[in-house]
Amino acid sequence: MTRNEALKKLDEVEAKLLAYGQAMGTLTYDGDTAAPANSAAGRGETLALLGGVVHGLLTAPETREAIEAILSDREGLDRRDIRRAELLKESVDEVCLVPADEYMAYQQLLAEAGAAWHAAKPANDYAAFAPYLERIVEYNRRLARRKDASKPAYDVLLDLYEKGASMAMLDPFFEQLRTSLAPVILAVGERPKPDAPFLHAVYPVHEQRAFTDRLMALMGIDRADCAVGETEHPFTCGFGRHDVRITTHYHEDHVTYSLYSVIHEGGHALYELGCDESLERTLLTGGTSMGIHESQSRFYENLIGRSRPFCEALLPLLRDCFPAQTRGLDAETLYRCVNIAEPSLIRTEADELTYAMHVMVRYELEKRMLSGDLKVADVPGAWNELYRKYLGVEVPDDRRGCLQDSHWSGGLLGYFPSYALGSAYGAQMLRAMERDIDVWGPVARGDLSGVTGWLGEKIHRHGRLLTPAEAFASACGAPFDPGHYIGYLSRKYGELYGL
Amino acid sequence: MTRNEALKKLDEVEAKLLAYGQAMGTLTYDGDTAAPANSAAGRGETLALLGGVVHGLLTAPETREAIEAILSDREGLDRRDIRRAELLKESVDEVCLVPADEYMAYQQLLAEAGAAWHAAKPANDYAAFAPYLERIVEYNRRLARRKDASKPAYDVLLDLYEKGASMAMLDPFFEQLRTSLAPVILAVGERPKPDAPFLHAVYPVHEQRAFTDRLMALMGIDRADCAVGETEHPFTCGFGRHDVRITTHYHEDHVTYSLYSVIHEGGHALYELGCDESLERTLLTGGTSMGIHESQSRFYENLIGRSRPFCEALLPLLRDCFPAQTRGLDAETLYRCVNIAEPSLIRTEADELTYAMHVMVRYELEKRMLSGDLKVADVPGAWNELYRKYLGVEVPDDRRGCLQDSHWSGGLLGYFPSYALGSAYGAQMLRAMERDIDVWGPVARGDLSGVTGWLGEKIHRHGRLLTPAEAFASACGAPFDPGHYIGYLSRKYGELYGL
Repeated sequence: MTRNEALKKLDEVEAKLLAYGQAMGTLTYDGDTAAPANSAAGRGETLALLGGVVHGLLTAPETREAIEAILSDREGLDRRDIRRAELLKESVDEVCLVPADEYMAYQQLLAEAGAAWHAAKPANDYAAFAPYLERIVEYNRRLARRKDASKPAYDVLLDLYEKGASMAMLDPFFEQLRTSLAPVILAVGERPKPDAPFLHAVYPVHEQRAFTDRLMALMGIDRADCAVGETEHPFTCGFGRHDVRITTHYHEDHVTYSLYSVIHEGGHALYELGCDESLERTLLTGGTSMGIHESQSRFYENLIGRSRPFCEALLPLLRDCFPAQTRGLDAETLYRCVNIAEPSLIRTEADELTYAMHVMVRYELEKRMLSGDLKVADVPGAWNELYRKYLGVEVPDDRRGCLQDSHWSGGLLGYFPSYALGSAYGAQMLRAMERDIDVWGPVARGDLSGVTGWLGEKIHRHGRLLTPAEAFASACGAPFDPGHYIGYLSRKYGELYGL
Repeated sequence: MTRNEALKKLDEVEAKLLAYGQAMGTLTYDGDTAAPANSAAGRGETLALLGGVVHGLLTAPETREAIEAILSDREGLDRRDIRRAELLKESVDEVCLVPADEYMAYQQLLAEAGAAWHAAKPANDYAAFAPYLERIVEYNRRLARRKDASKPAYDVLLDLYEKGASMAMLDPFFEQLRTSLAPVILAVGERPKPDAPFLHAVYPVHEQRAFTDRLMALMGIDRADCAVGETEHPFTCGFGRHDVRITTHYHEDHVTYSLYSVIHEGGHALYELGCDESLERTLLTGGTSMGIHESQSRFYENLIGRSRPFCEALLPLLRDCFPAQTRGLDAETLYRCVNIAEPSLIRTEADELTYAMHVMVRYELEKRMLSGDLKVADVPGAWNELYRKYLGVEVPDDRRGCLQDSHWSGGLLGYFPSYALGSAYGAQMLRAMERDIDVWGPVARGDLSGVTGWLGEKIHRHGRLLTPAEAFASACGAPFDPGHYIGYLSRKYGELYGL
């Protein structure tokens, strides 16, 4: 295969992968946000069939031949073409490990598992979901073994979501977080917590929807490029820089849930929306890894969104949309109330200080499920025990326990550590950003363009052209050091609680 | 090809067509209800690529070979297999007329035309939409010429939406409607119209959403099988009996708009939801023609929904959901107010009596566009002139004129007559139903199960297993006679307006 033939083949496979990816992604997004409950089985059949086509495309000998022709002679090649071939190779290598039938059955399984989880969570019925999780764990264990039988299965999966991640790297990372933060958590636990009437008011869903519009505008997100859907467990997906979807969930008695969901998912969206136009409809568009993606979402959610200056900008919006509910509220009280730190049950609602403990629970459980030490049937008991151990809370039911997250139903085993890594990446990025620009003056005035401009320049516009390590280096110019994250949390909560 | 090989091939092609159909249908539904405005071009590329795959599937020699093997020797074959092969042959015959490139480009065009129309309508900017319509008309004219150059292009298109329909059949049909109904319209025009405060009240969107839930329940539609989306121009789509989507549009100052949209689309939904489970995931599921489909939607919307007994059942729901807006309203006033007959601008809001005139305008224009007598640029002028001629109203702008419907942007040229045919079919079906069951007693009590049961037995459960003519005969047991429709309208409006 000549270089030109190989590049032409690359274009062709890329176009097909993007089209099938958009079709399957839209079916899944629609399934999670709009489709009727009984539609999952039919959608699963369609996803299985389309998955089979993708499988055929990736495992075709000409695809591998084209990749090899490009990567074996890189001299004079455009850097983008090399990176496209490398990314395609990653997909090919992974998919080639799984026979077509098994791959198709897994697509169908995921569609049905998603629907089963959607029904099981509100019904608090772990037993109804467990058989799906069983098969998902089995599939992932098998995949990992095929990919590299010499490594523990969980290490193989971790590397899928964050290149280079492994238990050897994450064990000490989490240990460092735990030992450093445990005394702060303990000290904070002894302090009185702030409170304010706005936390206990009722916020009708339609008023929250209007508030979301204001929040998206504050974040500088153009709704012509980014829609907002509603679902059980908020997530973001994107099909290029003119078609991003965030989702949220409205709780009438809990206004900050959707507030911080929207900012978190909005952070993901800004990454996707910020990719350079020239990467559109190529494999290079989108986020470069889950860790870097979460660094962006949690950057906006916490480092910006739960900062004192941002609360100053947020207050007038809240008062505009919810005048009755926020009567008498001032920025300092708002700031203190969105930073109440205390051990709790739900990861997505956790404060920054205890957040990593929630991730650790999932990390431990995934480790044990993948090694075979923990049976799927025993997950609820183990979950509750770890919440007792790491957070000191009693889990009253599986709905607020091991059924709370959608990730496992979507096959995402090994994803959770990305949240903790991303949080730590973000703290280090903020340090670098503060050296370059005036972050807080504009944020206090509701102007996030400097923040998004800086992240856009360092990270967003490059899409997947940079590896995760390169994207991190582009932003921070130094090796990863979790000390920044720990230092940030200790300072912030020390000041908040007068430690 | 042996019979067994042919049947196996039929299964295989059918499964793929259904999967691609669901993927493309979901992309389109999502595009119309949830996707951000700028996403159309990217979605168009994906639809074009998937359309190319479908084209390849339908034009493959083995597909035609399988169809021929099945249809050339029907002895001892299951009736369902024959019908599946016949339906597949219709698609193959149509698609084979268009080269792959042109077919793919048309899929992309439709995606972009939909978005262009969505933007042009509120902006009242016909010029921005016209280039798309131009290309859509061109494509359809070319398609018709290739299909049967001996017939006028419009006849070929009419037959696509309603087998057997032609100008030779529709000209006298519309003429009969016009001459019979014109005197009634004229006489009604001289009578005073009812009025009531509830028509002028404000209905917040979130309250209308809750009302939709009640309305769907009243219609006996299980939301686990049927979702409600929101869009500019309401429509229904379905992917089997467990995945139907209706859509509506809420106007705060116009509660009956969404009310009757939901009942209309709910009628479409009941047809799709009523298909026999054994037809699921085959080409036999869904409606057998657009005329029969519209007979069902307009049956619920008008024959049932605008009847006196239904208004009795509707009143308590309205009062529950909108107590302030409906204060003092009684069933008789409601009945009279939802049957105000007067020439108006918007087809979907038209009363039953003048409705066919709206369809005639579109029929005339399509006829002239397809014959080449009317240039796309001249459509607004011709539209306004016909509204003056048939309805005696002045069209103030294109938004309320030729841009009001989404059909042309979706490539549906020849569809509109189905609405008038469907209305007339429905009136004749009601006659047959009234002979078999007590229609009105249960309806007045809010029980539509008898109506839906009768239609389900005669029409819905058969899906596409029956041809449109067979479905009509199954319900009516007599040849089609528009006299029933004219008689129904004359009696109803005669009584309402004391003629």
